[in-house]
Amino acid sequence: MSDPDADDGEGTGEETPGTHGTPGVFKEQDYAARMARAAYEAATLGLAGVLVTPGPDLEWLCGYRPAGATERLTLLVLTADAQPRLLVPGLDRPDAEAAPGAGALRVFEWWDGQNPHTAAAGLLRPHGRYGVSDGTWALHLLCLQQSLPLATYQPLSAVLPMLRAVKDEPELVRLAAAAAAADAAYEEVLGLRFGGRRERDLAADLARLLREHGHSRVGLTVVGSGPHGADPHHRAGDRVIEDGDMVVLDFGGLKDGYGSDSARTVHVGAPTDEERRVHETVRAAQQAAFEAVRPGVSCQEIDRAARAVIEEAGHAEHFPHRTGHGVGVTVHEPPYLVEGEEQPLAPGMCFSVEPGIYLPDRFGVRIEDVVTCTEDGGRRLNTTSHELAVVH
Amino acid sequence: MSDPDADDGEGTGEETPGTHGTPGVFKEQDYAARMARAAYEAATLGLAGVLVTPGPDLEWLCGYRPAGATERLTLLVLTADAQPRLLVPGLDRPDAEAAPGAGALRVFEWWDGQNPHTAAAGLLRPHGRYGVSDGTWALHLLCLQQSLPLATYQPLSAVLPMLRAVKDEPELVRLAAAAAAADAAYEEVLGLRFGGRRERDLAADLARLLREHGHSRVGLTVVGSGPHGADPHHRAGDRVIEDGDMVVLDFGGLKDGYGSDSARTVHVGAPTDEERRVHETVRAAQQAAFEAVRPGVSCQEIDRAARAVIEEAGHAEHFPHRTGHGVGVTVHEPPYLVEGEEQPLAPGMCFSVEPGIYLPDRFGVRIEDVVTCTEDGGRRLNTTSHELAVVH
Repeated sequence: MSDPDADDGEGTGEETPGTHGTPGVFKEQDYAARMARAAYEAATLGLAGVLVTPGPDLEWLCGYRPAGATERLTLLVLTADAQPRLLVPGLDRPDAEAAPGAGALRVFEWWDGQNPHTAAAGLLRPHGRYGVSDGTWALHLLCLQQSLPLATYQPLSAVLPMLRAVKDEPELVRLAAAAAAADAAYEEVLGLRFGGRRERDLAADLARLLREHGHSRVGLTVVGSGPHGADPHHRAGDRVIEDGDMVVLDFGGLKDGYGSDSARTVHVGAPTDEERRVHETVRAAQQAAFEAVRPGVSCQEIDRAARAVIEEAGHAEHFPHRTGHGVGVTVHEPPYLVEGEEQPLAPGMCFSVEPGIYLPDRFGVRIEDVVTCTEDGGRRLNTTSHELAVVH
Repeated sequence: MSDPDADDGEGTGEETPGTHGTPGVFKEQDYAARMARAAYEAATLGLAGVLVTPGPDLEWLCGYRPAGATERLTLLVLTADAQPRLLVPGLDRPDAEAAPGAGALRVFEWWDGQNPHTAAAGLLRPHGRYGVSDGTWALHLLCLQQSLPLATYQPLSAVLPMLRAVKDEPELVRLAAAAAAADAAYEEVLGLRFGGRRERDLAADLARLLREHGHSRVGLTVVGSGPHGADPHHRAGDRVIEDGDMVVLDFGGLKDGYGSDSARTVHVGAPTDEERRVHETVRAAQQAAFEAVRPGVSCQEIDRAARAVIEEAGHAEHFPHRTGHGVGVTVHEPPYLVEGEEQPLAPGMCFSVEPGIYLPDRFGVRIEDVVTCTEDGGRRLNTTSHELAVVH
């Protein structure tokens, strides 16, 4: 049989596929409210509706997570003038109807041999303008454009960028719990031996500890020692960590359906003055960005606050990435803290604040917390020390 | 840091992210040849080129597998008149350049704060017609459509559906090895206790055995006992398997970068005459479909061959899914053996042949092999017995 592993090489990780949403946490009325809000916000923008295919938007909106996005169309249609409608492959109907938000949906089905895009077009307005979830397959979008040539489509992140960005209280509780679990894993890692071990062995330790502290999925275990730390995208390799290495640790995943993502940089043995200085600069940059967080401040201002500190220290060219990204049911979502992003922060938004300095072929430093915006300013969900920890 | 786990909830499974292609198997010249063929075939169809984003097409074409498809654009551009070009986020450049096919590429980069779709448009022809990999995010396609409004786009599976469908000899070797590993796992499962155990316990056994036999990823472990077997999409749940149950086992994953996907139906204790009869019908349907495989026969003819046997036995309405799908670097790709698919089979194609009969609320039977088309007809890559095995 083909469909359950149709995610084409990306896998569903170690989580049990077919689980729906966050078990026991959100109820039908929560999903109904989210779908109603999406439809309402779309309508106020003059959109005919919102079209969502499998992925985090679908899961967040109705709690339904099919095994993967596939060439078989699954499509949620949200409009202000009708009940939410979900079109699914006939075989998936029982799964879809078991989703926690399914009671708020009308489920429609299509079968192999039928044209799902014609079926979808029948649910849409011929001249409508629709927001489409970002990860929708081009295959489906192009077929919809063909089935309904006078309708227009825009990326959901362009029209409703902040749909999932403002978290409600139950979501904040879960994000805080995920961060606390990552913090606990980090505290335990500090007690492990670093010198003489391979990066990937420490990465395995980190992954194990994240699981022990309740993560259902480990998405990321970066161990960037010495010169490897100078590559912001390095993960973990066969390099044996040596005395005198700076080591970037960046780790996270999902716990109860919500993401963790944090980073600390540690040192094996006593750091040099230069290493201390660079670490201190990153720490100050992270603090400056954190202190800039408050409602109404634009995303790019947070990036600028971190960047100013690093530039002032003469490292402008050593901080090549944006300062942060939203965290929620994914670890990569709006708001993005990047130059050019004028979106104002609002209470309930959650995002990483993660400046870094990368000295090519030498070492790197990154410090990252998940931060939520409150009425009074930022609140860190990760609370372990920013001091440069010395490990052995 | 955000990017390495940017796959937004789908995960990269237990495989080590950052591994490129199938280690040590395919070389730069293999990838160069694949890219050249894609560009050539596109040109003969009047296309300006082929656009590929992260996923199995990208990995197959150039051996590059970034951590996941994200909102940050990675784009391979294949045209007949230029060297293959790969546009990547600047941070990913070292990873991209480490890919086994990278030597055949010109790598371009963009950085946070720049518009990647403008950069991509600079690599394309304003009025060109392009094939776009199916799984490309709608976000990227819509932005490309905006950046290059006079260009046109079609799904790659619509214009070059058989790009990856015909396997070369090294690929067939790997597919046969994956099938042999799945067969070995099945043979061991037959010796395990079924009665009194939960479906999910047997599914865990199957997963463990697939790994022990060399799978790097387990995509699928269906254990559908009794009435659960009557749902073709059932996976494995808490139901305790009882004496007298039919049990559908459907399992597979990836071994050395190539997929396995096979199914057998077993019985706990002695089957009834009806159970034997239904099983025998599915077996005959699978055999009929298998015997229909030869070059030049259309995909839908294979589906019809299986369906005719099942309809003749009075079970037309109990076989609601297509007969099969291609298997290669994914377990879900062309050719699709479904009514309406007129693509002729060609030597080297590999696909599942998996008819089934599902009696609602009672039991189901499915038998599935991966089959390759040769000059002389079909060859099964799965070779375990189709007899109804009795387990305990």
